[in-house]
Amino acid sequence: MALHSWNTQVARAEKIFNGFTETELYTPVAPGKNRILYLYGHLAVYHDLLKETLGLGKFTRPELAAVFLQSPDNPGDTTLSPAELKEYWGSIHNELKELFTNLPAEEWFKRHNAMTDEDFEKDPSRNRLSVVLNRANHIAYHIGQIILVKPTNN
Amino acid sequence: MALHSWNTQVARAEKIFNGFTETELYTPVAPGKNRILYLYGHLAVYHDLLKETLGLGKFTRPELAAVFLQSPDNPGDTTLSPAELKEYWGSIHNELKELFTNLPAEEWFKRHNAMTDEDFEKDPSRNRLSVVLNRANHIAYHIGQIILVKPTNN
Repeated sequence: MALHSWNTQVARAEKIFNGFTETELYTPVAPGKNRILYLYGHLAVYHDLLKETLGLGKFTRPELAAVFLQSPDNPGDTTLSPAELKEYWGSIHNELKELFTNLPAEEWFKRHNAMTDEDFEKDPSRNRLSVVLNRANHIAYHIGQIILVKPTNN
Repeated sequence: MALHSWNTQVARAEKIFNGFTETELYTPVAPGKNRILYLYGHLAVYHDLLKETLGLGKFTRPELAAVFLQSPDNPGDTTLSPAELKEYWGSIHNELKELFTNLPAEEWFKRHNAMTDEDFEKDPSRNRLSVVLNRANHIAYHIGQIILVKPTNN
């Protein structure tokens, strides 16, 4: 069920990003706020890091954290083009899909790497599944913003 | 875990709504978009209805659906004042908290009222918990929008 929640939000975000033209991706979600392009990268980088947080894989492009995780959007930033974003998004989510599909059920209830053994003993509900639920909510949060900009072709 | 996700989002939304002054609640989240006040009512009415969707309680104020669920915001609407919204929100979420706390674990895996027995047989993951997870994502979606307006006292 938690995975269903994750898959639903990822598919929804992907469909929305793909609904914008390249030019529209440069639109901010509201005056003075993050551009859609930034949120595209923000979610992709956060999910790239997610592999490492879950202890299932490697953060493939840590050099992107400074731009997309540690800072809000800089409207002049051109780190990743729309085409590069689309490719990066696809590769990260394909990798996660494979990792999630192959993870045995009991592994989902183990602790993730962002907490210590001691903390986990105190609160075993903070496991891998709870991280994925949290990330699904995080996607929904940003979809709510992106949806404020109406794509021309939808 | 699903309940934790729900509780986290409800608490977060409540804190954010309470951070705005009454006047600020009338601000749209972006030019021409829903006012915060509308989203406050939208979430409260949707969660009022949630009791009925889950088959656990009654939709106490169905007359509010037309304004807050079936239509986008009408900037001239004054159906509920900020004080009334706050009271309604509090009563709905207190009621849900009690219902959820007292629901035996196995009841969470039963089907909700928005689907038929036949559909449930086909996909038993569409149970009460999955509805609550979905609603938690829905709260996050709107928090993402509300957060675009900065309250003066935060």
